[in-house]
Amino acid sequence: MDCNVILQEIYRELSQTSQNGHVATYIPELAKVSPEKYGIHLSSIQGERFFVGDSKEKFSIQSIAKVFALTLAFHFEKEKLWKRVGVEPSGSAFNSLVQLEYENGKPRNPLINSGAIVVADILLNHLGDPANDFIEFIRTISGHPQIDYNPKVYQSEKQTGFKNYAQANLMKSFGNIHNEIEKVMDFYFLMCSVEMSCCELADAFLLYANHGKLVQSNEEFITTSQCKRINAIMQTCGFYDEAGDFSFRVGLPGKSGVGGGIAAVYPGHYSVAVWSPVLNAKGNSGRGIKTLELLTTKTGSSIF
Amino acid sequence: MDCNVILQEIYRELSQTSQNGHVATYIPELAKVSPEKYGIHLSSIQGERFFVGDSKEKFSIQSIAKVFALTLAFHFEKEKLWKRVGVEPSGSAFNSLVQLEYENGKPRNPLINSGAIVVADILLNHLGDPANDFIEFIRTISGHPQIDYNPKVYQSEKQTGFKNYAQANLMKSFGNIHNEIEKVMDFYFLMCSVEMSCCELADAFLLYANHGKLVQSNEEFITTSQCKRINAIMQTCGFYDEAGDFSFRVGLPGKSGVGGGIAAVYPGHYSVAVWSPVLNAKGNSGRGIKTLELLTTKTGSSIF
Amino acid sequence: MDCNVILQEIYRELSQTSQNGHVATYIPELAKVSPEKYGIHLSSIQGERFFVGDSKEKFSIQSIAKVFALTLAFHFEKEKLWKRVGVEPSGSAFNSLVQLEYENGKPRNPLINSGAIVVADILLNHLGDPANDFIEFIRTISGHPQIDYNPKVYQSEKQTGFKNYAQANLMKSFGNIHNEIEKVMDFYFLMCSVEMSCCELADAFLLYANHGKLVQSNEEFITTSQCKRINAIMQTCGFYDEAGDFSFRVGLPGKSGVGGGIAAVYPGHYSVAVWSPVLNAKGNSGRGIKTLELLTTKTGSSIF
Amino acid sequence: MDCNVILQEIYRELSQTSQNGHVATYIPELAKVSPEKYGIHLSSIQGERFFVGDSKEKFSIQSIAKVFALTLAFHFEKEKLWKRVGVEPSGSAFNSLVQLEYENGKPRNPLINSGAIVVADILLNHLGDPANDFIEFIRTISGHPQIDYNPKVYQSEKQTGFKNYAQANLMKSFGNIHNEIEKVMDFYFLMCSVEMSCCELADAFLLYANHGKLVQSNEEFITTSQCKRINAIMQTCGFYDEAGDFSFRVGLPGKSGVGGGIAAVYPGHYSVAVWSPVLNAKGNSGRGIKTLELLTTKTGSSIF
Repeated sequence: MDCNVILQEIYRELSQTSQNGHVATYIPELAKVSPEKYGIHLSSIQGERFFVGDSKEKFSIQSIAKVFALTLAFHFEKEKLWKRVGVEPSGSAFNSLVQLEYENGKPRNPLINSGAIVVADILLNHLGDPANDFIEFIRTISGHPQIDYNPKVYQSEKQTGFKNYAQANLMKSFGNIHNEIEKVMDFYFLMCSVEMSCCELADAFLLYANHGKLVQSNEEFITTSQCKRINAIMQTCGFYDEAGDFSFRVGLPGKSGVGGGIAAVYPGHYSVAVWSPVLNAKGNSGRGIKTLELLTTKTGSSIF
Repeated sequence: MDCNVILQEIYRELSQTSQNGHVATYIPELAKVSPEKYGIHLSSIQGERFFVGDSKEKFSIQSIAKVFALTLAFHFEKEKLWKRVGVEPSGSAFNSLVQLEYENGKPRNPLINSGAIVVADILLNHLGDPANDFIEFIRTISGHPQIDYNPKVYQSEKQTGFKNYAQANLMKSFGNIHNEIEKVMDFYFLMCSVEMSCCELADAFLLYANHGKLVQSNEEFITTSQCKRINAIMQTCGFYDEAGDFSFRVGLPGKSGVGGGIAAVYPGHYSVAVWSPVLNAKGNSGRGIKTLELLTTKTGSSIF
Repeated sequence: MDCNVILQEIYRELSQTSQNGHVATYIPELAKVSPEKYGIHLSSIQGERFFVGDSKEKFSIQSIAKVFALTLAFHFEKEKLWKRVGVEPSGSAFNSLVQLEYENGKPRNPLINSGAIVVADILLNHLGDPANDFIEFIRTISGHPQIDYNPKVYQSEKQTGFKNYAQANLMKSFGNIHNEIEKVMDFYFLMCSVEMSCCELADAFLLYANHGKLVQSNEEFITTSQCKRINAIMQTCGFYDEAGDFSFRVGLPGKSGVGGGIAAVYPGHYSVAVWSPVLNAKGNSGRGIKTLELLTTKTGSSIF
Repeated sequence: MDCNVILQEIYRELSQTSQNGHVATYIPELAKVSPEKYGIHLSSIQGERFFVGDSKEKFSIQSIAKVFALTLAFHFEKEKLWKRVGVEPSGSAFNSLVQLEYENGKPRNPLINSGAIVVADILLNHLGDPANDFIEFIRTISGHPQIDYNPKVYQSEKQTGFKNYAQANLMKSFGNIHNEIEKVMDFYFLMCSVEMSCCELADAFLLYANHGKLVQSNEEFITTSQCKRINAIMQTCGFYDEAGDFSFRVGLPGKSGVGGGIAAVYPGHYSVAVWSPVLNAKGNSGRGIKTLELLTTKTGSSIF
């Protein structure tokens, strides 16, 4: 069946299904987003592009940015990176701080907040102009030069992110944050404030579907081995405490954000991004997961 | 390159590498196994079979049996199974009991001890003659009718398994164990006492590489969807607190046992079993993981 | 003011106050007790005895028995006892098992369940006929030869005490239980099934008010120093997660039981027992605590 | 026996005993203190004063200041105080952050760091000139107008106190810190930097021995009931994870500091302060505890 037809079919079916849950409300910029928003974009490594719904509208990618930050840090640090952050899933959310304490300030993986804070700390030591260099990196790999931060989201995050400050201070007490807390947290909250559309996100994630090479130029940004590792980390750690369920229902490496976005890849074939801002009880986009479940079922594209 | 050549090459290389760690010593039957044992067997869904080293020698498969138990329980209970056991990785080992307590006696997944104890409890309600029916199931899917339990291993496990009893009692206090503790634990320890060779284990795991169908007869034992789910669970939960690292180094769903065995599958292609009894700090076969890492690197068969 | 008048006054005031909470319901023998029961008995070391209400009626003393068990074990083991059980409060209940695990199977103190299970294990090695010797000890120190176990309570406890079995097995896995689990748990549940009246309980606790000597005969059962230690442990650990609040409102060492009883001592002066079976949210008798708070306020007998 | 003779005797005995442990080293001002320092001062409510050794030399009182802060906050807030901080011991140190998280940002008691941070936050809303008003309070109750902060200790604490910042941020995320983190932490670290001698400290603690009244003027600073409560909290929470052991060996309410000081009271009789900077494994002055143990044994002044 044609991929366009499949996306249309999924979109029609799920647009009419009622949603359980709420959009994120901890900052005003997320709280005011319409719960009805819904877009999908799929880009294949052969250059095909399929999309439906609000796929061109920008939204706050939030934690999906952690994958880009990880990619850059892995590029700079290589295997040394794993001395400061692990690659194991973190178990349930309830013990985020105790686990950090128990494991001497080394976060379980780079896709949880504490791990991404360490990654931000590392990037500060490698980037000349961190804010600019980070966004340029995303522009380059996606091929969309107009991608940018949302300054209001950044400000709001900074004013409410006390739990993130708690984790940063705890890690600093163990010596696993090298720069000043304020500088690290500024950059961390900035990273989380990137805005992208499904189209831009899927295009950026083609890197992970294409073994670390840009589809346009065939330029290698990360090695095949590094790309495989990032995909493996997304597979086991990309969905907070729902990674197992996502793995089992969708069967693709991916990463979600609290803005309702999900980006995923079918290695060697395609990348896909969905946006639907109503979150389920575990903090992931409920309709987004359902979308990808139907997609892999209808196309037979699970990695398992 | 020919798969036989690759296995020979890996075997030669790793036979000469010194090993860090020790064989399991908590029961005499495991403690007395030679640390030098080393075998590999790969079975493809086309019927090819490649092997090297001690691949015909039986060893204690231990926790690998949890995959077989899960398969049977999933077959009987279908989606109801997930009411009593989760599908999420468990995070670090240190909080096994607190997590069970925090989550009201529902284990995080069926491949950790508490989860497999719940699975054992479920099987007692479905199997007429549990001990016999369980081993017959393994004999059937592997096509090896001589597979059996090791009664000494069973006895030793039972006499030292106090922590498993603690978990069973805690779950019973939450109503998540329905049969008598003694009956459940007897069956649980029996399951862990199965002995198989790499050859037999790889042949049994062909089921998971072949989308739930027996390779010999094309008979469907579990549905494609169920098979995909079991593979997803192995991917995220199959290696204790080293699932992320295995995922990232090997990139295949698999399960390890404290006897030094590992079984893994490349869905749609092959299954493979390794045995090397020296365990690393996380309780998995160090040489076994290295073997599979070289195998997927040399054959390009990671799912990522 | 006369102590009789004070007890009458407290009894009148609190009989009319409505109670929040419920009687314990986890076993039928406790569930069927009338929530209106209310008795108080105070015995001074000068031999005075004051009482009011249902002070002669027997009730299930439950965890109060842990003080008697500790006294016997301390008598036998002396300072060696503290190698197997601590003297620190346990913090909130939620982490009972993780704390036990974190501290290698050594319970925080002898008045929590895990600690009393270790004490039971120790007594099995010192008493020729544990069931008989333990009840005889209570009969002797109280001077009431008719005190006995309630076999129905014992049976019910045994059938529902899975969480206690979990703790015993966890401690056994660390080598801190020396006898067979079944034998230890039988004795532990038996200890919890003792029945006494307020009168009998206050008389038994005179030992702790009288520096370890029997009031009747001046015979030393435990040394002054040992008695001081048991009182200190009651002060910091006698009321589950309400020890601080009890200490602060009442200001006397004491121990509560889930049957609604509380026994407390004013060292050098008196012992007192209250019974009122409605439990507050922390599992202690709400009216019992209020009774003792009024008593120490009206008589000025707080230790602080 | 005369109290002077007893103090001399204890001093002689313990001066010659070798000490296990080390002085605190996390800030240079504590690290450079001589491990041989040793002073004792006892003040009775009748106005007697006994002392020996380095009892006039100032040292960093550190956490002992939490008792003064609690006293002021309790004075201002009365029973409302307990809505924001509990009165229960905290169990072992390992779970400080998880417990705070589990209990929604409400610290277990006002004598642990998180509790004292909440108290500092409260005082900021009641004191016109917090730094000055707090030190004036200590000067007044002790009758020593020359007591002051040590600015170097304050600076050093602030630069290394990341774990305290972590706790403050975690509590802020739960809404239990009302002022800005920086302002709260500045005041908290200032409080911990007070310097006093044994003489000054014992004189200040007379308030708690004298039921809340100044010995000099008989002026009531806190009510008898409030004083009883503060003593009860010291009894159960004053010695980190050694409160039970202190209670059991010494039998007096007290508070220790990481500078090696301990202040304790025998309600209705006397207050006493010891200073000996070598800390035991639990972070309390080992010789200080031994000193008080001998004192209560030789004088028979345990509250139990």
